[in-house]
Amino acid sequence: MINRFEKIQLAHGSGGLLMQELIRELLLKKLYNPFLSELRDSALVNFKKERLAFTTDSFVVSPIFFKGGDIGKLAVCGTINDLVVEAALPCYLSLSLIIEEGFSFLDLERIVNSIAFYAKKNKVYVVTGDLKVVEKGACDKIFINTSGIGRVIKEGLSIREIKPQDKIILTGTIGEHGLSILSGRKNTPLDFGIRSDCSALTDLLLPLLKKNLKIRFMRDPTRGGLATTLNEIASELNYCIMVEEESIPIKNKVKVACELLGIDPLYLGNEGKAVLVVEKKDASGVLKILKKHPLGKDASIIGEVINQKGKNVLLKTLSRGIRILEPLRQDPLPRIC
Amino acid sequence: MINRFEKIQLAHGSGGLLMQELIRELLLKKLYNPFLSELRDSALVNFKKERLAFTTDSFVVSPIFFKGGDIGKLAVCGTINDLVVEAALPCYLSLSLIIEEGFSFLDLERIVNSIAFYAKKNKVYVVTGDLKVVEKGACDKIFINTSGIGRVIKEGLSIREIKPQDKIILTGTIGEHGLSILSGRKNTPLDFGIRSDCSALTDLLLPLLKKNLKIRFMRDPTRGGLATTLNEIASELNYCIMVEEESIPIKNKVKVACELLGIDPLYLGNEGKAVLVVEKKDASGVLKILKKHPLGKDASIIGEVINQKGKNVLLKTLSRGIRILEPLRQDPLPRIC
Repeated sequence: MINRFEKIQLAHGSGGLLMQELIRELLLKKLYNPFLSELRDSALVNFKKERLAFTTDSFVVSPIFFKGGDIGKLAVCGTINDLVVEAALPCYLSLSLIIEEGFSFLDLERIVNSIAFYAKKNKVYVVTGDLKVVEKGACDKIFINTSGIGRVIKEGLSIREIKPQDKIILTGTIGEHGLSILSGRKNTPLDFGIRSDCSALTDLLLPLLKKNLKIRFMRDPTRGGLATTLNEIASELNYCIMVEEESIPIKNKVKVACELLGIDPLYLGNEGKAVLVVEKKDASGVLKILKKHPLGKDASIIGEVINQKGKNVLLKTLSRGIRILEPLRQDPLPRIC
Repeated sequence: MINRFEKIQLAHGSGGLLMQELIRELLLKKLYNPFLSELRDSALVNFKKERLAFTTDSFVVSPIFFKGGDIGKLAVCGTINDLVVEAALPCYLSLSLIIEEGFSFLDLERIVNSIAFYAKKNKVYVVTGDLKVVEKGACDKIFINTSGIGRVIKEGLSIREIKPQDKIILTGTIGEHGLSILSGRKNTPLDFGIRSDCSALTDLLLPLLKKNLKIRFMRDPTRGGLATTLNEIASELNYCIMVEEESIPIKNKVKVACELLGIDPLYLGNEGKAVLVVEKKDASGVLKILKKHPLGKDASIIGEVINQKGKNVLLKTLSRGIRILEPLRQDPLPRIC
């Protein structure tokens, strides 16, 4: 329960439990409507006779330039992905910039170039925008909000459709985005040579939806990482999810870096990956298609929904048996997006 | 021309000339598409067979609570108004919060209450959201982005439709929002008892569009005030706009405060007013309808488009003859929205 006389903590924005609590107990309660209450990555709404997906994200990542991307690329890809995982074809983006006085024009140009490049590459138009400049010290360099509108191409994807024996597929390796941001932090002069996975998933995921394959649900494991996303799913089920540790694709250098830093890669944010819940009989078919795409070449079936009452994620490890995989509580690495 | 080796200044976000330059020379050039290039308050786009208006605004106002409103009310009303002036019925809002670590939960609750109240009052749903918390010092208390989707109820409003002899109507008194923010600033212990005009204009403006009245164009004079909005319009015409000073409705206490502070109310931001350009024959009809609504009771015909080549706004004063009314260059009052 939220204590109303407390202060907002960093963990309220981490994607973990405290954030869920704040969203449910304050925002959802006060702003309640049937669209918002689903807490989807994009709201699915009626627009006259059409179905539309609508999403928003503010990006406050630090540093704003990192290996494999920058805040502009992250904004475009992040918003596209929030539409795509809701089975919507991204069409239009808005772009709102909050810039700190004294920010370098060349850096702004570099970010806008990146936005333009990734918008064009992914066939979305930036159609509307806003620009605010605040005094030095009133924001950290630049914050970007991108909201997006997509055309729903397939209805019915929902956590509520998930059933026991459904397979959990992860579209690729995890942890790269979080580690790339960590390496880029001023106060961590570490360089593991790890590039962010930041990518738009339109071409990887939308073609799948046009095939006769029973995909129940998709979500991208960003803040809070894979562990938190799986817990978000499990918390809405009446069953547990069992995941096998050795089937989770992680690059060797990510493993090494995580060991050195004492970080669990399952909690590191990603921005070019998705978790798919697929009916058992179609899992190998989905995997085969994913693997044909460069962004899905490391895709793997990492677990399944098991016929065991509960709302937990269970992690089966080779060395330590089965343990409960908790959602994120405190974020070890704020501002990854 | 922008000097790429310069730094971003506060004036780049003021709504005035420097901002226009930055938008046109960087953002519009790099992100060009026919929707964005119109630089409307909302983009008007095709969505399958429907026409949709899409807008975005980030609110960084300081102080976040002021006489007549708060950042939450401002966000909802501001985004609604950007849809309404493009002849769109506001339907859906997104809400993205960037909160500084240590922010008071009670203040957040107060802001969310305000958002909920004004969304409900104006029949829009907040359907999707995002929440980021940044370290102390990385933002000033709270920034809010609201993006909005509206249903276009009338096509064809455009600056390009404006012709000589068209009348300029202002829906009410100006300057209150800017002065209310100024009074609320920590370093200006002035209290003129002036409340922000922050209001949603849906009920005032949309009914007008359903009548057989030739409204060419509408815009809300926010950042940069009435003078800047009129200049934005004139800069797209091949004619001048002539405005009569004494017909511009300004509350007496606003006049007094502006004189004391040496501020020109024509450059003060508003958030509950609109400028309408109306065909001459329909101007009195529009005025009559506006005046019936509480938000339009002070509406006034303040000038007209004159058959004189140029792109200037001319201000006719009783005492000093006619002078050119320039757009805002440097903002005397940043972060009013």
